[in-house]
Amino acid sequence: MAKMIKKNYLLAPGPTPVPVDVLLEGAKDTIHHRTPQFKKIFEDAVNGTKEVFRTRNDLFILASSGTGAMEMAVANIVNPGEKLIVCSVGKFGERWVELAKTFGAEIVLVERDYGDFYTPEMVERALDENPDAVAVLTTLSETSTGTVMDIEGISKVVKKAGKLIAVDGISGLVAERLLTDDWGLDIVVSGSQKGFMLPPGLAFISFSKEAIEKSKNVSSTSFYFNLKKYLKDPIPWTPAVNLIYQQSLAVKMLLEEGMENVWARHELMGKATREAIKAMGLELFSKRPGNVLTSVKVPEGVDGGKIVSIMRDEYGVTIAGGQGSMKGNIFRIAHLGYMSDYDVIIALTSLEKVLRRLGFKVEYGTGARVAMEIFEKEGA
Amino acid sequence: MAKMIKKNYLLAPGPTPVPVDVLLEGAKDTIHHRTPQFKKIFEDAVNGTKEVFRTRNDLFILASSGTGAMEMAVANIVNPGEKLIVCSVGKFGERWVELAKTFGAEIVLVERDYGDFYTPEMVERALDENPDAVAVLTTLSETSTGTVMDIEGISKVVKKAGKLIAVDGISGLVAERLLTDDWGLDIVVSGSQKGFMLPPGLAFISFSKEAIEKSKNVSSTSFYFNLKKYLKDPIPWTPAVNLIYQQSLAVKMLLEEGMENVWARHELMGKATREAIKAMGLELFSKRPGNVLTSVKVPEGVDGGKIVSIMRDEYGVTIAGGQGSMKGNIFRIAHLGYMSDYDVIIALTSLEKVLRRLGFKVEYGTGARVAMEIFEKEGA
Repeated sequence: MAKMIKKNYLLAPGPTPVPVDVLLEGAKDTIHHRTPQFKKIFEDAVNGTKEVFRTRNDLFILASSGTGAMEMAVANIVNPGEKLIVCSVGKFGERWVELAKTFGAEIVLVERDYGDFYTPEMVERALDENPDAVAVLTTLSETSTGTVMDIEGISKVVKKAGKLIAVDGISGLVAERLLTDDWGLDIVVSGSQKGFMLPPGLAFISFSKEAIEKSKNVSSTSFYFNLKKYLKDPIPWTPAVNLIYQQSLAVKMLLEEGMENVWARHELMGKATREAIKAMGLELFSKRPGNVLTSVKVPEGVDGGKIVSIMRDEYGVTIAGGQGSMKGNIFRIAHLGYMSDYDVIIALTSLEKVLRRLGFKVEYGTGARVAMEIFEKEGA
Repeated sequence: MAKMIKKNYLLAPGPTPVPVDVLLEGAKDTIHHRTPQFKKIFEDAVNGTKEVFRTRNDLFILASSGTGAMEMAVANIVNPGEKLIVCSVGKFGERWVELAKTFGAEIVLVERDYGDFYTPEMVERALDENPDAVAVLTTLSETSTGTVMDIEGISKVVKKAGKLIAVDGISGLVAERLLTDDWGLDIVVSGSQKGFMLPPGLAFISFSKEAIEKSKNVSSTSFYFNLKKYLKDPIPWTPAVNLIYQQSLAVKMLLEEGMENVWARHELMGKATREAIKAMGLELFSKRPGNVLTSVKVPEGVDGGKIVSIMRDEYGVTIAGGQGSMKGNIFRIAHLGYMSDYDVIIALTSLEKVLRRLGFKVEYGTGARVAMEIFEKEGA
């Protein structure tokens, strides 16, 4: 008999693992934010993040969670009574809805069940029926279900109608291919604690010229997230200095890896996870699963909450359960950010262990065999 | 001839120096925020911060700068058209004014020039003349001028009138004695990068039962800063996990030092700085100088901007210049947070060096002599 030392593995869709070099970068001496010395670091962070966003649009760094950046998107493009087409297939689509309500927008809902997705055709229909809509709010990766949307296709129909499109890319960016400028995306939002390999505390948001133009006619009741303030001075409030040191380094690491490879890596981790999950006799929850996370139906007769709590508290492996109405029905394994093939293997072997313990029949190594075969085939 | 190695000294009123142990605490592995493991750390941070605030009120930790917490204060206690008494003697009083405007309040202004202060009597008069006001917005330490207000006295008249009082304690808290509960302060706001010895990125806000009661009848157009969300779940959005590790440690350090001693230490650093400045033949700017920072008039014939830039870029000592209309007219030396007697000496000797270089006559050691005498007299 021997007991293992408990190492902790963070395999949830945010916060995600932070490289040690990035953690230590945040331990550098805090300097004053109104100095030429900080300005240089800040500009590096902004410019690197723009490259990750694939944009030349204005991009702002907020001291907030991703939700703050979503508020900034809505608060600055819609006046009370104006119409927004809001697309939702889960908890984070619902957040757009709540925000649109908060700012008094009239809401046209393009909604599908959790696990489902919306298509360019559905959005086109809503645009046809609502020529007075000012913008469409979408989600790249719906984190609550692991579903990825066809943002490129959706943006085409939005642009054809001459409207603005905002994309919640909080969990999706970095893991899923997204080309802000090539696809004509007016507002893209992301957060630090997902693909960016950073601790939580920062959000990023880009605005196209058209979105900025629209914002000039919006009398926003937001102050901290008021775009006019950021256009006048991109550092309107004291920034999270040490997190920005870390951001500057983390985007440099991403760009050195190369965004094409970063996307391909996530695609491969996603594919390997999905095929392994199926080989283990489990069922995927999403009808259009993405490469941020894989959501899996809890098998009949197994306690879904226990899968997550045993893995975390006894094995040191943190995955996520279902949120809201999904609680107990699904669990979610991330392959997002600073993760590689061996993180996928840890998730799969740990999952086999807990499932066997909870009475589900699966042979050890089933997931690892399928995943390793896929990694090898793709040369990874 | 020899050249010194340039060590950096951060002696500005925020960000302030962060102890190395606190910097390293932020480099610990990021864990998931929806776990019992994080909950424990979060509760330690909240409870310790409540002790620093001297309150049993609800206290929330925000991922934002202090301005975000000021927005939360205003957004949740005033409906459009309701009246606020807003007190202002500088840039951060003006921020209350801007926020009150943003949320549609009718504003009664208690205003004095930069450098001046407002009194309980002035606030009492405004309350008498405006019995329909719902709240009074005040500032503990006006960072732009180094002026401290008599919040205890002001709160007495506000409580007598049965109104709510909100205090911007962003730079003031920790450095200036403030007793939230004993003084009946309904809302107190602070930020991480001042007295709390933390990097920027967090804000703290406490709400009394009365303030929470009022908020129930306010239809806030804020989402990220909506109090109702925080009352339902104190972690409504992904928190800045690593900063909260640091907060938990930093407040522990403050409480081990003891708040009475923390306040006395700041009082002594403030006194020594003020007396030394006067002995050097310089003039204080504030009519009621506090212990957060000392603002000093730029002497005739000296370029105020150069004082700050030479000290920072050539000597490695960062103090602050004047903001807005004060630019070039004053400079500001902080004695705030993780600072001690020797930080005061560094500021004074470095200041003598730059002033001599810019043509102002002062004997080396003038400031150090006066400051050391005061420290010794007080047994520090």
